[in-house]
Amino acid sequence: MTSKNILFIMCDQLRFDYLGCYGHPHIRTPHIDALSKRGVRFDRAYVQSPVCGPSRISFYTGRYVRSHGATWNTVPLRVGEVTIGDHLNPLGMRTVLCGKSHVVADVAGMARLGIDPHSAAGQRIGQGGFEVWDRHDGVHPARGKKKPSHYNQYLNANGYPGSDPWEHWANAVQGDDGEALSGWSMRHLDKPARVKAEHSETAYMTDRAIEFMTSAGPTPWCLHLSYIKPHWPYVVPAPYHAMYGPDDVLPVNRHAQELDNTHPVLAAFQAQRFSREFSRPDVRERVIPAYMGLITQIDDHIGRLMAWLDASGHAENTLIVFTADHGDYLGDHWLGEKDLFHEASVKVPLIVVDPSRQADVSRGTVCHALVQAIDVLPTFVEVAGGVVPPHILEGQSLLPFLHQTSAPTQRPYVVSEYDYAYREARHLLGQTVRDARLQMIFDGTHKLINAPGYRPMLYDLQADPHELQDLGDLPGSQPAIARLLQHLTDWSLCHHAQITHSEAQVNAIAGSEEAAGIYIGYWDARADG
Amino acid sequence: MTSKNILFIMCDQLRFDYLGCYGHPHIRTPHIDALSKRGVRFDRAYVQSPVCGPSRISFYTGRYVRSHGATWNTVPLRVGEVTIGDHLNPLGMRTVLCGKSHVVADVAGMARLGIDPHSAAGQRIGQGGFEVWDRHDGVHPARGKKKPSHYNQYLNANGYPGSDPWEHWANAVQGDDGEALSGWSMRHLDKPARVKAEHSETAYMTDRAIEFMTSAGPTPWCLHLSYIKPHWPYVVPAPYHAMYGPDDVLPVNRHAQELDNTHPVLAAFQAQRFSREFSRPDVRERVIPAYMGLITQIDDHIGRLMAWLDASGHAENTLIVFTADHGDYLGDHWLGEKDLFHEASVKVPLIVVDPSRQADVSRGTVCHALVQAIDVLPTFVEVAGGVVPPHILEGQSLLPFLHQTSAPTQRPYVVSEYDYAYREARHLLGQTVRDARLQMIFDGTHKLINAPGYRPMLYDLQADPHELQDLGDLPGSQPAIARLLQHLTDWSLCHHAQITHSEAQVNAIAGSEEAAGIYIGYWDARADG
Repeated sequence: MTSKNILFIMCDQLRFDYLGCYGHPHIRTPHIDALSKRGVRFDRAYVQSPVCGPSRISFYTGRYVRSHGATWNTVPLRVGEVTIGDHLNPLGMRTVLCGKSHVVADVAGMARLGIDPHSAAGQRIGQGGFEVWDRHDGVHPARGKKKPSHYNQYLNANGYPGSDPWEHWANAVQGDDGEALSGWSMRHLDKPARVKAEHSETAYMTDRAIEFMTSAGPTPWCLHLSYIKPHWPYVVPAPYHAMYGPDDVLPVNRHAQELDNTHPVLAAFQAQRFSREFSRPDVRERVIPAYMGLITQIDDHIGRLMAWLDASGHAENTLIVFTADHGDYLGDHWLGEKDLFHEASVKVPLIVVDPSRQADVSRGTVCHALVQAIDVLPTFVEVAGGVVPPHILEGQSLLPFLHQTSAPTQRPYVVSEYDYAYREARHLLGQTVRDARLQMIFDGTHKLINAPGYRPMLYDLQADPHELQDLGDLPGSQPAIARLLQHLTDWSLCHHAQITHSEAQVNAIAGSEEAAGIYIGYWDARADG
Repeated sequence: MTSKNILFIMCDQLRFDYLGCYGHPHIRTPHIDALSKRGVRFDRAYVQSPVCGPSRISFYTGRYVRSHGATWNTVPLRVGEVTIGDHLNPLGMRTVLCGKSHVVADVAGMARLGIDPHSAAGQRIGQGGFEVWDRHDGVHPARGKKKPSHYNQYLNANGYPGSDPWEHWANAVQGDDGEALSGWSMRHLDKPARVKAEHSETAYMTDRAIEFMTSAGPTPWCLHLSYIKPHWPYVVPAPYHAMYGPDDVLPVNRHAQELDNTHPVLAAFQAQRFSREFSRPDVRERVIPAYMGLITQIDDHIGRLMAWLDASGHAENTLIVFTADHGDYLGDHWLGEKDLFHEASVKVPLIVVDPSRQADVSRGTVCHALVQAIDVLPTFVEVAGGVVPPHILEGQSLLPFLHQTSAPTQRPYVVSEYDYAYREARHLLGQTVRDARLQMIFDGTHKLINAPGYRPMLYDLQADPHELQDLGDLPGSQPAIARLLQHLTDWSLCHHAQITHSEAQVNAIAGSEEAAGIYIGYWDARADG
């Protein structure tokens, strides 16, 4: 049978190489590894922007950042963009959010169109096409403007008092004398969270997802189970806090030459505080074991989820996607956080499990094709029985890689974008808001980063898989630079905003003056034209 | 005093050089010429697409075609695009349509958002932000799907019977024996229309505009008086049908070398029927005098309008813009219609009359700056007392050219686009829908046309002002091609869809982690960072 439901699991800030099945020698992720044996593991999957908001909105719209326009966190998703709900709901599939989405409602746009943001339609639009089962973006509720999530109520009900239990219990650690210490201070990450593991966010969201699936009834659904971990604060509950030590950490991937004749944009990011801190061995040795503990904790809950799916029979008819919104530098390339386009940041794990018989041919294999975040929603449209509208969805379904019924179309390149207008790096560079833009294009061999006002960066991933040498200023790089810039230009100059006419509509109109609504005079009789 | 109202006059398919003030040696356009003496005449004004629909929508949104997405006639204007009404209505100014707009409602988009297209909001959105006083797109009502306009009722009431008087009277000519002949056949254009001049479309729309202004009351308005002439069918009533003869026609601007080693896209357009017909001297000599008669008729009504404005006192507080949506090849370059980017097609007349004292300094002058259709709406926003939001409006106000209070920002280039997926030329070329795109960039010297799948076209307007030699395949052109392609890439890679955060919002968020809603951990105490 073909899949009826979709379980779309996303982790936040999970590096592709911090999973056993992606080659990490020490981390224990047996359940995610098992998932990869049930399906196809993509080892060259790229996100459309190495930062939460834009990356997620590309997943949820199937469109490049330049197309959906939400270029950074907090940028409202413009009303009128076609969302996951717009694609799947008309096919009879509910689209349900359990966890983080980072979507910000375009309240001004709704006002322009006379849409009440509190109406049912307004709520759906403002949530990017999701029906909210439980939303928890991990935004500090006391400082941010979001309403406290159900998770805060849950913590209160489970013995964690106070008005902001997320901050004071889930994001705090237990000092040696029982005192609370802020989890935002990475020094404290050798200590356990003040919540028990079973009350942590990862456990809670898994519970909530199972609750949804249990109660969902016969209507097909696409459930977006969206963990806010292993994103920082890297606070991790016992026993996971003590599971890994400095010896389990991957060696830092960096070279002294990356600090020499450095591209100005890279240098500006290296100069930011989080990069300076993650460049210290003591910081890495304290933080990364906690990061790894968070991942193994997620893995345990994936195991619980899979056991539930198997036991309930859902596994037979549920397509599962496991991925992340971006990676984490963790000190590689003298950087912390994400933001730029080295593999640690822009490449993500992507595992797709299709229980249908057509996918047996690919089960347990690794796919080396270049794929992108925007390919996920077209996959869902196909699973839901729809036809992908390529004038709206800019990715391509991944099912041909799984079913191998025909040779899948290979993407000649992947593109990712970053708007650094919002970051300190812009001020360090004295760059304008308008030109604080980066675009990456990677053709499987060379990766070019276009940076207005500066020379491009260039990495040759065949000769230099660890991306330690920026070739952008070498005369010998000109042919590769020219080739990639040409691809980037071609990509950019395509239609990205013409979403109201399908190719079939274009063809219908192109063949008929009547349909085109234009009439042109003639000299000779029409018939002999 | 500053202007309170705006009269935004557009002609359809009016070539810039078929006006006296733009140098035509024979045509009589004294009232438009007088308008240019009252204001500033721009002699390098370009439209964002040389075809009605996309060009108009760029005027009405202040955005490039790649941004608004309505890439050709009949492509619905996607719901959520910010329109002229969205900009001016909140400033207390009505936006009123009298004539043609070519806007097609995005009914599917409205359905996605739960907007009833018949509601007041739905009507406004579907009309591209205009309140309809009288809409008449000139689309054949019997064949097209539009409701008959008020103009049909008007014709019936004035002695032109039948269910389709537009077709059978306004678009038909009177044969020598009083019989009706179709005006779509250009052979007949030496004969007068079957309607009297005072009942023609141009007269009717002028009447309707005066009716609106008379009844409008004190609320400021922007009235879009949008004539469907001199667009074809070039049927013209007496006495204008006999006003001009073959000797009044401008010499055809073409050269035999334009048929030799011709760029494939240009050759495909030259092969279309209208181009072949307009390449015949007999066709030009029959059609262009009628075209000129239509223009002089418009001019007479502009005179009537100006007399009314003067007499009623409106002239003192009404900013007037006179322009066109694109030109007409009329046989130049072996082409008919518009569609491509020679000056005859992509350059338009643009006259701006600002009655305010600040504009006295520029009155009667000619401005040679490069300006664009998207500059018109920012001008209106300034006139209405608003502040131009550059993340939405991609043009720049023209007022600095009129007021000369500070040095106006010079546009380094203008860009125009064309989607030929809908045209026969695509079939002749065997081009895909996706790649049937052209982009023009003109920096005031060189004009480059980028054509996916083909070499670019290039014209040097300093050495070759008549654009008779395409330099695109000459080795010596490489520096100019590279320079313009770089500009085109830069332009294309700018944000075009990020319309929900202003620069001020970006800056407010960039300076505050709290506003950004992101929290990042630290090692050392925050204060010493």
